This record gives sequence, structure tokens and C-alpha cells, in this order.
Amino acid sequence: MSSQLIQEILAPLESLRLIDPHSHINPHSAASKTLADILGYHYYTELAHSAGCPREHIEEPGITPKEKVGRLIPWLATIENTAQYNWLLEMCRSFFQFQHDRITKDNWESLYDRSLEVLQAPNWERAVIERSGLDGVFLTNDFDDPLEGFDTSFYVPCLRTDDLVFHLVRGDVRQRLQKATSMAIGDATSLKKAIGCLFSHFKQRGARACAISLPPDFAPEPESEAVISGIVTKVFSGSEIDEDSMRRLSNFVFWTLAEFCADFKLPFDLMIGVNRRVYESGVYQGQDLYDKRTSLILYKRLLNAFPQVTFPISVLSETCNQELVSYAWIFPNVVTSGHWWYSNIPVFIERDCRSRLQAVPITKQIGYYSDMYKLEFALPKFAMYRRILAKVLAEDFVLDRGWSVERAVSSGIQILRGNVETIF
Amino acid sequence: MSSQLIQEILAPLESLRLIDPHSHINPHSAASKTLADILGYHYYTELAHSAGCPREHIEEPGITPKEKVGRLIPWLATIENTAQYNWLLEMCRSFFQFQHDRITKDNWESLYDRSLEVLQAPNWERAVIERSGLDGVFLTNDFDDPLEGFDTSFYVPCLRTDDLVFHLVRGDVRQRLQKATSMAIGDATSLKKAIGCLFSHFKQRGARACAISLPPDFAPEPESEAVISGIVTKVFSGSEIDEDSMRRLSNFVFWTLAEFCADFKLPFDLMIGVNRRVYESGVYQGQDLYDKRTSLILYKRLLNAFPQVTFPISVLSETCNQELVSYAWIFPNVVTSGHWWYSNIPVFIERDCRSRLQAVPITKQIGYYSDMYKLEFALPKFAMYRRILAKVLAEDFVLDRGWSVERAVSSGIQILRGNVETIF
Amino acid sequence: MSSQLIQEILAPLESLRLIDPHSHINPHSAASKTLADILGYHYYTELAHSAGCPREHIEEPGITPKEKVGRLIPWLATIENTAQYNWLLEMCRSFFQFQHDRITKDNWESLYDRSLEVLQAPNWERAVIERSGLDGVFLTNDFDDPLEGFDTSFYVPCLRTDDLVFHLVRGDVRQRLQKATSMAIGDATSLKKAIGCLFSHFKQRGARACAISLPPDFAPEPESEAVISGIVTKVFSGSEIDEDSMRRLSNFVFWTLAEFCADFKLPFDLMIGVNRRVYESGVYQGQDLYDKRTSLILYKRLLNAFPQVTFPISVLSETCNQELVSYAWIFPNVVTSGHWWYSNIPVFIERDCRSRLQAVPITKQIGYYSDMYKLEFALPKFAMYRRILAKVLAEDFVLDRGWSVERAVSSGIQILRGNVETIF
Repeated sequence: MSSQLIQEILAPLESLRLIDPHSHINPHSAASKTLADILGYHYYTELAHSAGCPREHIEEPGITPKEKVGRLIPWLATIENTAQYNWLLEMCRSFFQFQHDRITKDNWESLYDRSLEVLQAPNWERAVIERSGLDGVFLTNDFDDPLEGFDTSFYVPCLRTDDLVFHLVRGDVRQRLQKATSMAIGDATSLKKAIGCLFSHFKQRGARACAISLPPDFAPEPESEAVISGIVTKVFSGSEIDEDSMRRLSNFVFWTLAEFCADFKLPFDLMIGVNRRVYESGVYQGQDLYDKRTSLILYKRLLNAFPQVTFPISVLSETCNQELVSYAWIFPNVVTSGHWWYSNIPVFIERDCRSRLQAVPITKQIGYYSDMYKLEFALPKFAMYRRILAKVLAEDFVLDRGWSVERAVSSGIQILRGNVETIF
Repeated sequence: MSSQLIQEILAPLESLRLIDPHSHINPHSAASKTLADILGYHYYTELAHSAGCPREHIEEPGITPKEKVGRLIPWLATIENTAQYNWLLEMCRSFFQFQHDRITKDNWESLYDRSLEVLQAPNWERAVIERSGLDGVFLTNDFDDPLEGFDTSFYVPCLRTDDLVFHLVRGDVRQRLQKATSMAIGDATSLKKAIGCLFSHFKQRGARACAISLPPDFAPEPESEAVISGIVTKVFSGSEIDEDSMRRLSNFVFWTLAEFCADFKLPFDLMIGVNRRVYESGVYQGQDLYDKRTSLILYKRLLNAFPQVTFPISVLSETCNQELVSYAWIFPNVVTSGHWWYSNIPVFIERDCRSRLQAVPITKQIGYYSDMYKLEFALPKFAMYRRILAKVLAEDFVLDRGWSVERAVSSGIQILRGNVETIF
Repeated sequence: MSSQLIQEILAPLESLRLIDPHSHINPHSAASKTLADILGYHYYTELAHSAGCPREHIEEPGITPKEKVGRLIPWLATIENTAQYNWLLEMCRSFFQFQHDRITKDNWESLYDRSLEVLQAPNWERAVIERSGLDGVFLTNDFDDPLEGFDTSFYVPCLRTDDLVFHLVRGDVRQRLQKATSMAIGDATSLKKAIGCLFSHFKQRGARACAISLPPDFAPEPESEAVISGIVTKVFSGSEIDEDSMRRLSNFVFWTLAEFCADFKLPFDLMIGVNRRVYESGVYQGQDLYDKRTSLILYKRLLNAFPQVTFPISVLSETCNQELVSYAWIFPNVVTSGHWWYSNIPVFIERDCRSRLQAVPITKQIGYYSDMYKLEFALPKFAMYRRILAKVLAEDFVLDRGWSVERAVSSGIQILRGNVETIF
């Protein structure tokens, strides 16, 4: 009865076409070319590595895609229980007509061959987009991305700013910035100007958001331009700066970004809580973790200072979800955004989804984004979310509150798609 | 089957008459006079504001109640998903014969007119009390409340102490204290005496508890009277004191309150975790948030020092609920108390209720309080809690443990009402 | 339908024989001799005390076991709702043919008499082991335990190291260490050697793990042997040391333990998060609580430094479970281990179990351990866990993912038993 109801709500959500508001797609190589592009996703390599597969085995230079897949296959048996494995199975079934319950040493080669046929067919990119019902995919572009050679109305540029806020002390980052803006930077004013230049470029090319991932202890504050100027001069002349100066410089750049978000009317995606390189011997992209001891109170000053900027906020630790709900319930400029990384498994999604629906205005909820590196992942990730959303709508709204199925579906559509269009 | 069982348990819980152990009712104006008193509750104004309604629009001086309601109506569409909206709907249905699924620009005026008839009928206060099955309502009185002109056997006084602990540096607070006690305060001894005077007054007028809300970083410790005397002298002569002195003064007053709770045999309600005025541009009463990084370990010394005082504890962040359960499981003087504010939505209530029932002696659980400002809110808030409690009793006790329905109901009654009578 | 499915999965899990990977069993007195050994478990005394039973009443010297039980009986009425009471009932029903729903002043004496017959029968130890399906029980031995006089293939020794890491400043602990190793300790080198000596002894007697419980603020770092030598010399000559030196000494011993775990190929059980003696007037073993503000990030350096050591990690606060899941998802040497103490109630177990199954390689999950002091507790505690595991497998895997019952059961077996054999 309840499962039939869930199906009724799910069906229209499944046929809904989507705009994916956050991904890491490279628009010049958006679709997978081989199964190795799919199995090479850090969600699989890190789990295989965690289960015992040596890193060198996976990352050995020069191995062919088929060899790489072949080396990962034996480890899949140890992660069949995971949500991530379920995405893999769903991709193989949907895209490659895979019929088995498990991917094993006996069936993987035929799967590989079949997948190769599919992935290397002309127009696969278009096909996977259609099959996945995507009307648009937001990117996460380096600040010096020329944003050329792709259709920016489908692959929507977003300005990723981690390097600017946290890595200006690296020579390569400074050079990229000066080159991208054709500017010589020597003080706070010229740095600000250069950043404005990036915003102009991104905005002209159709960017819809500025985005950044932040460590759990980041606590942005404004800094005086006078103090910062000295630091910028030092940094851009290649001198070392101490930790306190680095923190101030980060604050200054971050605050400047928020100011330009206001000027350019761009939402500022905050992805809060990641510690980089916690496990330095981990596989590529499988080294980051977090410290749950963080709080949105650290953003008090920012949220008060920029009422005109919308902040779609993602939190890495599920223990921060209630704060996110409460801050979005009070602050007009805080929007709940998706289910990020370590919180992107059903048990956390369901509870987070439920609490947001129970306490945040429905107009302020971005249901889900894929965070994907290759287009094939949109389908299973959004499918997971749609099933959970349908369940929550069925139980909390149709059964508990007596809503009609139509009304529940319409709320689901707003969260899945409507809000993406109104917020960005 | 399970839903029929829930109904069986729910029915007797719904007919149970209640004592509400924590509210903000003004006994001189306990019931709403117009729908604006209901929709003016910060739960609605802050959500409407969060969804985009300008504060000035809601708080414009001089607008009529009907105008105020009219201005909030369009924003209700954005918060229909929330638990708070559901309370509103339940009030309108129960009290004003509202028949629709939604309150809209097309039906609100007739609702307003009908509600006016009801709310302004003679004896509405008595009627809403009867309809809601209330046998008593605890208040939260300012320390200088004369506690006169109302029936203290129904509207039970409780001494609210936030001002004493945190705001003695404000001249108006000091004056109110000296006036209320007719005492000149100049040192620790006289301050203590004045506080004792308040306890006498409250106790004589039938007070059943002392209550306070506390910021997440509060960590009470005893202070030496000698040191404090100097600080009190300074403060009461109008001099400024530094942050450390303020902290010590707060500690001293807080500790003194606990001592008087022991002397006067009053439970001390601790409501832990709120940061005031985080969002300063928020609507009235819609500015407070929290920092989840707090712990009951901060109260270690207090709980050990006052074994004879009962501490009904509420926590603002749901991440503190397990600590509350564990501390109540070990400390005889810790009682779990209700579901407070940002934790007062079904998803958190259900889990918190479940964990308390699984690990805390049943005699030490205060199920719920309304926290209401107007009497009409008792009905939908307690209704929400009763449904959740019935569900938990059905699933965890009747189905999982083979309890009879009668036994489950009797536990529910103890949590909803019995413990309020034995604890306070 | 779902409940029938759960039964289908549960049945084979219930008939599975187990190895209990963590207990506090004294192998020289493993089974209860009277009901007082069962009701004297801190889970009951602390709850009774919390509900109002005076400590002196329970801990009065010289009272007979029957008197002790008789004094606890009246308080049971206040804790019938708890999971712990349910274990008690399950033990009484399974072992003593108790037929009632509740243990009351009217029926406890016949229960007591019946239990006495059972518990004092010859071979009760063997009988309860058989009834509980135990193939082995891990102990937690003091470092100076001779490990003699019991069958170490069934009662598997584990080296408990709390005293070494945190209490070397106590004269009795130092004497026990010097006596156990027959060594004079005077500097870092000899201390290290002595610890190695303990490892040799334990390993020879079949130890399978080193174990420790850690306070929430512990953050292990390596220390220089030169610095530590001076501290060791001081401590072993009976001089006082300051807090910083104590912290360094703890670090040094802890790091040394990890090194020997590597050398001796022993897993190192970390039980993270307990504050000892928070409630000093609590009953025996009922004084410890915790501070949820801790993070696995504190173990970053350790986990990176010892890739060859397996760390089965238990966390005391449920708010740490997601971190545990995430760290086990990335770090090959982190294993999720059981459901500890204040997190060992159904509501937390279910969610923690669910999240681990959704995101951690199945080979890296130790489902459950009893933590018991007397053998009788294995049955009801594992029964509780098996029911929850069966429910999660039924809902998340058979229903949601279309797994066969056989496959779900086989995963359950791996978590309950298989991994204990492969990991230790």
C-alpha cells in the first residue's frame, strides 16, 4: 500500500527532466570513454583501496583502461553492500544491458566489451544526456578557464574559487591569475580588480554561481584593505608569509568574492567542512576527510553582511544538517543544497531531506546535485535521490498530512527542478 | 495493521487532560484576540521573512491585525510543507471550522472573519482551555512579576532568570531587581539576599520551577564570594566590568540560583544551547540560533554539586540528545524535558523520544511542553507530539516487545502527564 | 510481509554460532553464580540509582546476593521501558523459565530460587555457552594478568592498556609493571622494553588484540625518546610530573603500543570518547560519561603512521558514527567495531548499522560485541543486534535492492562472525 503510493509519486519524478546544479564535468570530455572512466571514479578506487587493493595497483602509470578495470574487479566483491556499488550496477544495467546481480571475474569482460561499444558510439554524449533526462549541467570551472569550445547554455559555467582563497601562496596559482586577467598584482586593490575581472569573464560566459569548498575551521571575517595590501605585496613578490597572514589573506579574498557575488548577482555556493589530504597515501581524490566539530555560527558575520547574496550551503557532516535547516529557516539568504559526499548515502539523505521538508520554506531547498565527473553518474545518483524523495513525500505528506498525490508530486518537482531555475 | 494499532494507542492519549510544563503565556492575555496573534507567532513571521517577505512589511507600526494577516497570507504558499504550517491548519480547522486544505488569498478573509467571531466571543479563553484539555499551564515569569491578578493554581508561576544571570550589567535590570526586592544591592551578600527574596515571593505565589535559557558555551562554576563582591559593587555603582568579570558574575548568580532551588525545593529548568541575536535583521523573536558544539560535560560540576535539585534539561541541538539521554541515565537529578524549538519538528522528536524511552527511567521523562505564547498553540503542538509518541509506543513496545496496548498507553500517560505532576 | 521477511533472515542469523570479540569476562568466574551477578551489572544498578535508589542501599557491604536483588526489585518498575530491562527479561525467560511480563515484588522470589538452581548447577558455564552459541569469547586482560588457568583458545586474551597509557603515575601501576616484566624501569628505553615484554607474554598466550579506551580529548602524537626519558626517570623515581609531561608520557606509551601492535601483528582496538568519573557519587561502574565534541581527525597522524596495524574503532557518541563510517571508507586500516555502551540501544544501533552497510566495505565491519562481564549477557545482547541486523538487511537490501534472502543472510553472517575471524 505504502510502496504502491511511493511508486505513484516516483513515476512522475522519474520522468522529470533535470538541471544538475553542481558537477565536476569537463565539458570537453563529458562522457566516459571506457568503463575505466566510470570505475576510476574515486568512489570506487578509494573503497577498493580501503578494502585492501594497493594504490600502486590502481594507479600504475601506463596500464590500459581494460587492465585498470580488471584490477579493480576482484575488489568489487567487498563493496557490493555499498550505495556506490549500487550506482555502478544501475549504470551497467541502464546503459550496457548488464543482466547479472553482480559484476564478477566471470562476467566483467563481456561487460567491458559491451560498454566499450556503447561508450565509443558516435553521439554517446548526447545519448547519455537524453537517457538521463538532463536539460543542463552546472560545471565547476577553474578561475582561469577560458570557457570556450562548449555550449554554455547546457554546460553552465560556475566559478570555483578554492585556489584563490586558499592557494595564492603557490606561485603557479598567482601566475595563472595574472595571466588570466592580464594584470600585474601588487596590492589589495589590484588583487580585488583582478578578481572582478574573473567575475566579468565568467558572467559574460553565462556563469550562474560562484563556488568554494571550505575547511571545518574556516571562520570568515572582513579584513582591512590596508593590512592586506602589505600581505598581498609580500605574497606576489614571492616572499613567505606566516600562518596568521595567510588566514587574513584568505579572509580578504573570500570577502571580496562575496562582494562580487553581490555586484554580479551570483549565488555563492558554500560547501562546508572538508579537510584536505588527511590520508596522504590514499588514492587520487580519496584523501580528504573532515572534522565534525564545525558550526554555521562561524558564518554569522558573513550571512549578516551580505543579505543580497544567496548562499546555497552544503555540509559535509550530517551532524551539521540540523544547523543548516535552522539557519535556512531564519536567514532569507541561506538555501539548503543537496547531499554532499560523505552525507550522500540513503540513510543520511532520507533524514536530511525529511528535516528540510519539515522546517524550511520549500522555495529554499535545492534537492540534489550529482557532483559527478562523468555524465553517466547523473542517472543512478539522481535515481537514488528520487526514490528517497518519493518515500518521504509519501510517508510524511500523503499519509501523515493527507496531501493528494498530485500535491506531493508538485512539491517534489519544485525541489528537484523548479528551485534550481529560480535560485540560480 | 500498524496504523490501526497506533490509533488504538493514540485515542486514550488524545483524550488525556494535560498540564503544560513550560509556556510563555501572559496570564492577563492568554488567548488570541485575532488571527494576527496566531500568525504573528515568530514561527510564522520568521518563516515568511526567510521566504522573502520584508520585515518592515510585517512589523510596520500601526497596521491593523487584519492587514498584518493579509500581508502574511501570500507567503504561506512557500511554507505549506513545514510542521509549523500544519499547526496553523490544525488550529484553523479545530477552532474556526476551516474546511480547506490551504489558506489562500481567496479564502483567508472568510477565515479571518470567522476566527474573529470565535476569538472575540466571551469565554473564549475558557473554551480554548477546555477544547485543548488543559488542567494547568506553567508560565515563564520575569523575576519582578508581581504574580497577581490571575489564578496561580491554573497559570503556574515559574521564575525566569536569564536577566539575573546574564544582564545585571544593564541598568534597567538592576533597577527592576532593587525595586522588586525593595533592597539596596552593593555586594555579593546583598545580591544573594535579593535573589532569595525573589524565590520567597515566587514560592509564596505557588511557583513550581526556576528556569533559564543558556548559551552553548556556558560552563557554570562556583565563584568565591570575596572576588564577586568587588564585581557586584562595581556593577551596582554603574561601572563597566570586563568580560571575565561578567562571566564570573554570571557564574555566581547562576550558582546562587541553584542553591536557592535546593533551599526552596524547586526544580531548575535548564534550556541549553541558544545564541541570541545571531541574525540581527531578523523579525521579532526570529533572530536566535545556535552553535551545536556544546556538551553537557560543561554541567559536570553543577550536577555533582546539587544532587538534591532536579534539573529538567532541554537541548536546542538534536546532536545533544544522546548526551541528554546518557546523563539522565546516570545522574539521578537529570530529567529529560520536551523537544525544544529547532528540535521541535517530527523527525527529531521521533528519534529523541525513541532514544529516551529506550534508555532513561520512565519516571524521569517530561514528554512535552508547548513553549507557546498564546493558548491556541497547545492543541496542535501536543497533537503532533501525541501522534509521534503513539507511533513509538506502538512500534517499539507493542510490536517489538510484545507489550499490551494498555501498558503502552499507561506509559504514554506517565510521560505526558504523570511525570509533570511528580517532578514539579 | 516485511516482518515475515525479517524472520526469514533472522532465523539463520539466530542459529549462527558466534565469537564475541570484546568482553570483560573473568575466565575464572565467567558465569553468574546468583541473580545478583546479573542484576548487579552496572546497567541495572546505575539505572535504579538514577531512578532514585540510594547507592548505599545497593552497595552496602555484607548484604547477601538475595538481599541485593530484593533491594533492586522495586526500582525495576521505573526502568521496564529500557532496552537493558529487556535484556534482563530475555535472560530470565531463556535461562530460568520465567513466564511473566514483568519482574515484581510478587514473583521475584520464585524467580530468584529458580535462577539459583540453574546458576549453581554443575556445568552451568558450559550450558550457558552452548545455549548462547558461543565458540569463543575475547577477554580484556590487565597487562599483568598471568593468563593461566583457563582455556585461551576459547577465552581469548586481549591486552588492555588503559593503565599503561594513563596511570603510570600511580605507584601501584608501576609496581605491577615492574613485577610482571621482572624489569627495573628508569628511562624510555627500558619502559619500551618492558612493554615489549608484555606483548611477548600475551602473544605467546594467544592474545588476538591490544585494546584501550580513550578520553574524548586524546590526540596521539609521537614524542621524542630523549624528552620522554627524563619524564620516565622522574615518574619511576616517584616524583610528580606536570600535566604536559603526563600528556607526553601518555602519547609515548600509546605510540609504543602501536609500534608493538605492528611488530606482533595485533589489531589495536580503540574505544574512543569516554570521560571517567564524571559522576563521582554514582554506583560502581556507573560514573563515566562523555563529551561529544571529539573527532577522528585527532587520530589522523596515528592512522597515517601505522598502515600495517588494523584499528577496530568503537565510538561512544553516536554523533561520531558518520566519521567512523567515512574514515573506514577511506583508510584501509580502520575497521568499524560494534555499538558501544551509550550507543548500544536499538535506535542508535539501527542507524549506525545502516550507514556502515551503505558505505563501508563489508569485510571491514565487526558487527557486534557483548562488552559483557558475565556470560549470560551474550544471549540477549546479541539477540537485540541480530534482530536489528535482520531488519536492516531485509529493508535496505532485499526490499530496496532486490537481493535474495540467501545473499542478505550471507552478508549478515560475515558481519556477525566471518569478519571477527579474518580481522583478529
